[in-house]
Amino acid sequence: MIQGKNFIGNQRSATGNQTIQAHNPATNETLEGTFYAATQDELAQTMQLAQEAFQQTKKMSAARKADFLRAIAEEIEALGDTLVNRACAESGLPQGRIVGERGRTMNQLRLFAQLIEEGSWLDARIDTALPERQPVPKPDIRKMLVPIGPVVVFGASNFPLAFSVAGGDTASALAAGNPVVVKAHSAHLGTSELIASAIIKAAEHTQMPNGIFSLLFDQGFEVGQALVQHPVTQAVGFTGSGKGGQALYQLAQQRPQPIPVFAEMGSINPVVLLPEALKNRGKEIATQYAGSITLGAGQFCTNPGLLLGIASDALTNFEYALGNAIQQTQPATMLTEGIADAFHNNTKKALQQSNVQTVAQVPQNGQNNQGQAVVAKVSAGEFLANPTLHQEVFGPYSLLVVCQNRGELSQVIQSLEGQLTATVMGENEEVADYQDMILHLQDKVGRLIFNGVPTGVEVCSAMHHGGPFPATTDSRFTSVGTDAIKRFARPVAYQDCPQELLPEALKDDNSLNVWRLVNGQWSNQDIGALA
Amino acid sequence: MIQGKNFIGNQRSATGNQTIQAHNPATNETLEGTFYAATQDELAQTMQLAQEAFQQTKKMSAARKADFLRAIAEEIEALGDTLVNRACAESGLPQGRIVGERGRTMNQLRLFAQLIEEGSWLDARIDTALPERQPVPKPDIRKMLVPIGPVVVFGASNFPLAFSVAGGDTASALAAGNPVVVKAHSAHLGTSELIASAIIKAAEHTQMPNGIFSLLFDQGFEVGQALVQHPVTQAVGFTGSGKGGQALYQLAQQRPQPIPVFAEMGSINPVVLLPEALKNRGKEIATQYAGSITLGAGQFCTNPGLLLGIASDALTNFEYALGNAIQQTQPATMLTEGIADAFHNNTKKALQQSNVQTVAQVPQNGQNNQGQAVVAKVSAGEFLANPTLHQEVFGPYSLLVVCQNRGELSQVIQSLEGQLTATVMGENEEVADYQDMILHLQDKVGRLIFNGVPTGVEVCSAMHHGGPFPATTDSRFTSVGTDAIKRFARPVAYQDCPQELLPEALKDDNSLNVWRLVNGQWSNQDIGALA
Repeated sequence: MIQGKNFIGNQRSATGNQTIQAHNPATNETLEGTFYAATQDELAQTMQLAQEAFQQTKKMSAARKADFLRAIAEEIEALGDTLVNRACAESGLPQGRIVGERGRTMNQLRLFAQLIEEGSWLDARIDTALPERQPVPKPDIRKMLVPIGPVVVFGASNFPLAFSVAGGDTASALAAGNPVVVKAHSAHLGTSELIASAIIKAAEHTQMPNGIFSLLFDQGFEVGQALVQHPVTQAVGFTGSGKGGQALYQLAQQRPQPIPVFAEMGSINPVVLLPEALKNRGKEIATQYAGSITLGAGQFCTNPGLLLGIASDALTNFEYALGNAIQQTQPATMLTEGIADAFHNNTKKALQQSNVQTVAQVPQNGQNNQGQAVVAKVSAGEFLANPTLHQEVFGPYSLLVVCQNRGELSQVIQSLEGQLTATVMGENEEVADYQDMILHLQDKVGRLIFNGVPTGVEVCSAMHHGGPFPATTDSRFTSVGTDAIKRFARPVAYQDCPQELLPEALKDDNSLNVWRLVNGQWSNQDIGALA
Repeated sequence: MIQGKNFIGNQRSATGNQTIQAHNPATNETLEGTFYAATQDELAQTMQLAQEAFQQTKKMSAARKADFLRAIAEEIEALGDTLVNRACAESGLPQGRIVGERGRTMNQLRLFAQLIEEGSWLDARIDTALPERQPVPKPDIRKMLVPIGPVVVFGASNFPLAFSVAGGDTASALAAGNPVVVKAHSAHLGTSELIASAIIKAAEHTQMPNGIFSLLFDQGFEVGQALVQHPVTQAVGFTGSGKGGQALYQLAQQRPQPIPVFAEMGSINPVVLLPEALKNRGKEIATQYAGSITLGAGQFCTNPGLLLGIASDALTNFEYALGNAIQQTQPATMLTEGIADAFHNNTKKALQQSNVQTVAQVPQNGQNNQGQAVVAKVSAGEFLANPTLHQEVFGPYSLLVVCQNRGELSQVIQSLEGQLTATVMGENEEVADYQDMILHLQDKVGRLIFNGVPTGVEVCSAMHHGGPFPATTDSRFTSVGTDAIKRFARPVAYQDCPQELLPEALKDDNSLNVWRLVNGQWSNQDIGALA
């Protein structure tokens, strides 16, 4: 079944001689399939096709794009157990998680279909002419978002489905009207091929232009870098390490024409434990957080890697309860050997920092590539002085920082880098009391959670999964939720444009029923219907 | 009246020993006032104040910010003839233009006041909780735009009021809730000081925090560069040359924390002259364009620097008519000696390129720093082969490119770099006939104009004054019109946030009457009022 070939649009292609293979992290076995890294020629053909396809996709109706997105969801479902089994084998993730992630992936595709049919994402604005205005007539000006051009998407190791070949980046880029070229992640090569075959089937069934989607394999970084540098590429979506994301970002800024790179690079997601909450429900919070820290072997961008509290009996009790709860968790297979090795090295390094104490460390179980949960503890003074302790340890790890008082807690918060999320665990009155500190926390983050856990990112229109650098390269955009589409579009204004030439959503006759700002008034009516 | 001191928040300061002076380009005379370049110490104090002020401005109500913006407009008006005379003397622009630009500047301030009171720019979204949802409850998530942090604005030479100290960048950044630090442009130092004094007066009258606005002078590039590199700075607004804009952009990307730079760097604004339009109204178009090319001595980012047509008798007649009309225009004083010198050197260089012919060149009139209109002509073949001809000549200059046929016209369009605008002059039927070519043109631009001129940028909600690189550094944002505010904000999501802590615009009780997307439905009602 697995052919190991690149998809250059609808064609499978394997003209190169560099090959890679897939591995099962639970067994370290090599899996079926030999995958061919794309050659520079194959890459050039791919980008040429993408550019040609863009001439079609940029003027495609929302209805046709929505059909395509829904067809992809159906074709993914049709892959059935073949997909689930391969994804489990390649990622080490349990079946329940993969089936859930598949559901999320299909939901995302359908959500974007619905979004573009509804149309308000276009941010349509119409200012009609005032030919009699003095001293000069006012022209008719209308504006909406248009697709930006071919988008390159990098698959993510930790979401083999929802953030990879047909994940949120691809779904939102296609929904906006852009062709997509995916660089497959080496951690799930077979899964990538299966999903790509589903997308190509859907493209054929819905008569999409050849080149609307391509998938390339890479042996190292060569193909990925060349994709970012290619003049046809107009934007990049990436989820992964800070090192990888920042390298792609710098590459993109140094092009003759710089392009946006949306790199979501993870963070340590601070959790502020306020005193009253710890006193009233410290044990409950400890259980909740032992779950969040170890969920998916801690391999989430939103993993709570930093717990902040003020020294008290309640905090000591919490620490004890958290240690106990962590100690009872089971190790789980990590995504790749590389990720497991990095986790072990990084936890070791963290625990070796001066005055860092181990609160809990789950013992090794002798199986391959396991992530054993670790919780450590350090004083705020030490944390403030040691930048190593601010670094993310990707996996089931969290650091409890003990502050002497409120002032020190505030200092720790102000010392933090940009984060995807921050969480406040507090009773209502104390939350109000700490409002200024929470506003400081807000400056650092993209999402502020109250009395919950940061893991579990709801896919909805109010979600913001982003945050100030270094959490992402662009805090103004989200990679989860419907607004993710805005990354791959730009506004164009039409001045005195004949009706026939205007995009459907900007015509006087609002046949799509889109919400628009017409002469300062929000409306989904025809222009004629407005006085 | 002119003191030549920096404004570090509300305090005037001149502790340095590097000084600069202002000049009248019409007379080459030195104008009143010795201006002190800010020292590194003064800069550090300024940024410290801006950071402190941000703690207030980020939570300030729209009503208070709107009061401040309107007070600035009033204080600018109160400067009366002092401002008009100084701006005319420093810029060489006629009084009518300066009075008009002052009106635009005040209108912009009032427009942003109105925008933030209306509130839909916040892009508020509310997805309410579903506690019973299986397999996991859905949390309550709400999102809106929040201010990004202290913004640095560079004054522009060609709009001493509307794109400078209290121009669109400053107005939109303040409206979003950010402190602003302006680097005064050396071409209008006194004007900058006068406007800054008006802003500071307005800030004091409306009880704004000290540091919400500062103005610094610079002898060269030192202060500007240090402002872009300062860790407190979170975004930069710039209007000017490609060289300047790109240098600041690269500087900002190389910071430990990269920040967005919105540089609007001008373009050559191609105009496509379709055959039937030329046949039916070539002479009229020639007159219209002679006006657009020479408006404000051609010193607009939207100046039509490139005219494209297909060889025909009608095009020859147009060329003749344009030449005649241009020949009748009067030279005008350019903004600075440097700009006038560059204009003369660049037109000379353009006219010396192989096979470039002069269509019209207004003779020198012996006065200082005059811009004499020049129109040149070249074949499409030559244009395609010579990148020098694609470069902007800032001033009253335009190049007519004669294509042999439709295919060549299309080739020329596809060879263009990113542009702020493109214009199509055509009869309705031929515009439809050329639709594919127009879609290619759209890929290159931020605004597409039909049967008009690109100069004269309407300040309204549908305006997009931006465009693909190298016209700007970020095609997704506009520097003119109400959407300019989106440059200086970023979304934050609030998950299960107590009502008391939510920003006003996200509370169940929609006291501000803001349009919001509530569970997928656009509404300006309270949450309780929705079923």
